[in-house]
Amino acid sequence: MTQRQIEKLTQKIIEMGPAKAHKIFKKASVYPECPIDYSLLATWYTPGIAEPCRMIMKDYNQLYRLTSKGNRLAIVSDGTRPLGLRSEGVWGPHASMPIMEGKAFLFRALGAVEGVPLMLGHCKKDGKIVVPTVEEFTNIVKFTQENYGGINLEDIETIDDKCHKILHQLREDVDVKIPVWHDDQQGTATIVIAGLINALKIAGKKKENIKIACVGSGAVMVATIKLMKAWGILPSQIRLADEKGTVDSSRDDIDDNTETGKLKNEVEQMNVIGSKKSKEAIIKGSDVLIAASVSIKGGLINPKLIKLMNKKSIVFAMANPYPEIDPEHAKKEGAFIAATGRSDFPNQVNNACAFPGIFRGVFDVRAETISDKMTLSASEAIAKRAQKINEFGENFILPHMDDITMAVDVAANVSMQAMKENLAGKPIRDEEDYKKDVRKRIEKVRKVSEILVNLLEIK
Amino acid sequence: MTQRQIEKLTQKIIEMGPAKAHKIFKKASVYPECPIDYSLLATWYTPGIAEPCRMIMKDYNQLYRLTSKGNRLAIVSDGTRPLGLRSEGVWGPHASMPIMEGKAFLFRALGAVEGVPLMLGHCKKDGKIVVPTVEEFTNIVKFTQENYGGINLEDIETIDDKCHKILHQLREDVDVKIPVWHDDQQGTATIVIAGLINALKIAGKKKENIKIACVGSGAVMVATIKLMKAWGILPSQIRLADEKGTVDSSRDDIDDNTETGKLKNEVEQMNVIGSKKSKEAIIKGSDVLIAASVSIKGGLINPKLIKLMNKKSIVFAMANPYPEIDPEHAKKEGAFIAATGRSDFPNQVNNACAFPGIFRGVFDVRAETISDKMTLSASEAIAKRAQKINEFGENFILPHMDDITMAVDVAANVSMQAMKENLAGKPIRDEEDYKKDVRKRIEKVRKVSEILVNLLEIK
Repeated sequence: MTQRQIEKLTQKIIEMGPAKAHKIFKKASVYPECPIDYSLLATWYTPGIAEPCRMIMKDYNQLYRLTSKGNRLAIVSDGTRPLGLRSEGVWGPHASMPIMEGKAFLFRALGAVEGVPLMLGHCKKDGKIVVPTVEEFTNIVKFTQENYGGINLEDIETIDDKCHKILHQLREDVDVKIPVWHDDQQGTATIVIAGLINALKIAGKKKENIKIACVGSGAVMVATIKLMKAWGILPSQIRLADEKGTVDSSRDDIDDNTETGKLKNEVEQMNVIGSKKSKEAIIKGSDVLIAASVSIKGGLINPKLIKLMNKKSIVFAMANPYPEIDPEHAKKEGAFIAATGRSDFPNQVNNACAFPGIFRGVFDVRAETISDKMTLSASEAIAKRAQKINEFGENFILPHMDDITMAVDVAANVSMQAMKENLAGKPIRDEEDYKKDVRKRIEKVRKVSEILVNLLEIK
Repeated sequence: MTQRQIEKLTQKIIEMGPAKAHKIFKKASVYPECPIDYSLLATWYTPGIAEPCRMIMKDYNQLYRLTSKGNRLAIVSDGTRPLGLRSEGVWGPHASMPIMEGKAFLFRALGAVEGVPLMLGHCKKDGKIVVPTVEEFTNIVKFTQENYGGINLEDIETIDDKCHKILHQLREDVDVKIPVWHDDQQGTATIVIAGLINALKIAGKKKENIKIACVGSGAVMVATIKLMKAWGILPSQIRLADEKGTVDSSRDDIDDNTETGKLKNEVEQMNVIGSKKSKEAIIKGSDVLIAASVSIKGGLINPKLIKLMNKKSIVFAMANPYPEIDPEHAKKEGAFIAATGRSDFPNQVNNACAFPGIFRGVFDVRAETISDKMTLSASEAIAKRAQKINEFGENFILPHMDDITMAVDVAANVSMQAMKENLAGKPIRDEEDYKKDVRKRIEKVRKVSEILVNLLEIK
């Protein structure tokens, strides 16, 4: 499309509002990429089709060669925590469908991965929403796994550790053979680390010497802290607080057996009760503030607290649509780098930089799981890509999501790391050839979409 | 493609063999039919996407308007009876995937319906195949129903009435709100009736006066007899036999509670024991022979038995790849019309004439179920379409599967019938406008596929 077409379209989309815009934008159709020639039916369908079936029966690997399984990703959710909007409760699997269709779109457009929504649960005729228990959830995934090359979990609640239990069971259950990923947790952690690598570089700080204040104790923070530890941050460098106070051994209200509970004795012991004071305590003398808590108009954290941080302070405030600290206020109070989850401010911390390239790489080497080292190799690739862009600096720490080179680099790093760890079922021979091939595939999706838009005269 | 391109391709496909040919032909990709413009992300994805979600929460019907659910069809199988090949046992959900991908292709190409394979069960690391029980099967469908506009069951075994129980439970279970169809049963029955309508017309026989000999007592025959009854054939006009003898009240080996068992006392009582004699008994004096049993080289039924039938006899021998009676032998022995399941003989009894148009119509009016009358209206449309083709006659009783006018007529008949029965959630205003629209959508799929083939230089 020409620039003028895009401008006209943009105007139109904004006028029609999000509901209609989504209806247009989620539009995706499956098209046969083959001649529709029924005279060949006896060869490629019955009775000929029995042959590929028998080949798969004899050798399971043929399933990846002869069907689309290997590039098909289930985007699985029960709609219990849509868009992380805790305050709005359970929307249910039906009402959360637009989110998963949007996510599927991003997987296709950014990584040439065929995302397929798989909502679990249902809305009964009387309007009552039924969502699966942890056991029902994992059981359905087990019974449907042959359709997919991987599982991307999405928007599952943290209550009773549901999202943690599901991820854990699916990864540990020997009967699920495909890689499982919870994007709200791991995808966010990946891009936070990528942002941190560059923020520390620009600020001239060393990761060994920093103190990190974390606000929020939900699934995102649990995963981020886990990945920071795998990256080399010591638990003693981390300070944690949520709405009820600092999270440490003094907190009797958090069950020791939950994922958050396990962190209680690990992180720095602050022992400050009361939410206002506790935030002050963990922020004071910190180099980095990471907030992943709740979206409140005006922001959860008083920007004045930034003044208590060390020099060249780094702030990631990721609540949407209202960041915990407005980035402009943070800067005004002395923050050196401010990042948010929003696309309309500089430094968007956006997991769409990570997940398309990660699954591209995972699928291409048929990795059996996604290890922390693979995840960190994605963070590395994203960080390095930003460094090569002219704008790189305190207002540009991360690339844009639609940077094809970034997706290619992420896929290459992830697949190479899988090979190093002996997790690759189908190794890649030449990294450079592979990168060319990935670029070609992603560009193909964009080219075809453009042709379809023109052909179908989508307005 | 030009004729020459098709010829070259055909030659190539045949040379590469079914496995490679399938690999090419199952190729289908999901393409965004929208501009890939990330500057609009805030509108069509987060935070804007919350709006369509909230609209669906308030009004369930918006799910059909704002997402792709309504055109998405799950092709569900456990791979326990692949291609109806009883002798080869359970291939399992993994090895049956090519069949379901092929079926999905047919749904898309012939009916513009987005078929999605949903294989249930899995192949364990040690190679052991796990398939769901009836309860597990129906439970998974219940929990995944929000993703689909309908369920197409496929290749499920008859042992212990599994396929019947699943169909029955899914249709009766109030918690499954979408239409459920078992194509091996109902699709085949639809096309058999369509063929019968025309065969009787050409032979100058009236359905009230005929005797029908049925060979085989599996799921296909049970469904065909059920639909024949709905069509107006009296049970007393039907004679039934399987490999062990005639199926009638004398058969102690068939459980009265199974679907086949329920027929025992209904059909004409022949009481002949022993398979050879029993076939003779039911065929003698019959006008129509319908065989849906097993594929045996040389054919299960001695063609000489045709001589015992009434004049202008009609033979449907549907086992694949070896029909119960070779159609040329049947003709030699006096059959007036001979039909098979094969594409390389005249008169192919092919359910691909039925299922794409049926689901097109069902989806377009959002029918809550597929009634027998809707099914019969599809048979009518198929039969009438054949009558309008020049070749119509004893060697051309049914249209080809790729006849777009037939798919359009089937969709129109089915949707109109659903409206008559008050089963349509979203009525159609004008039948002629609707037919034009259906034609346009099916032609679009073909046009886009042709463009993709040329664009991607698929050889």
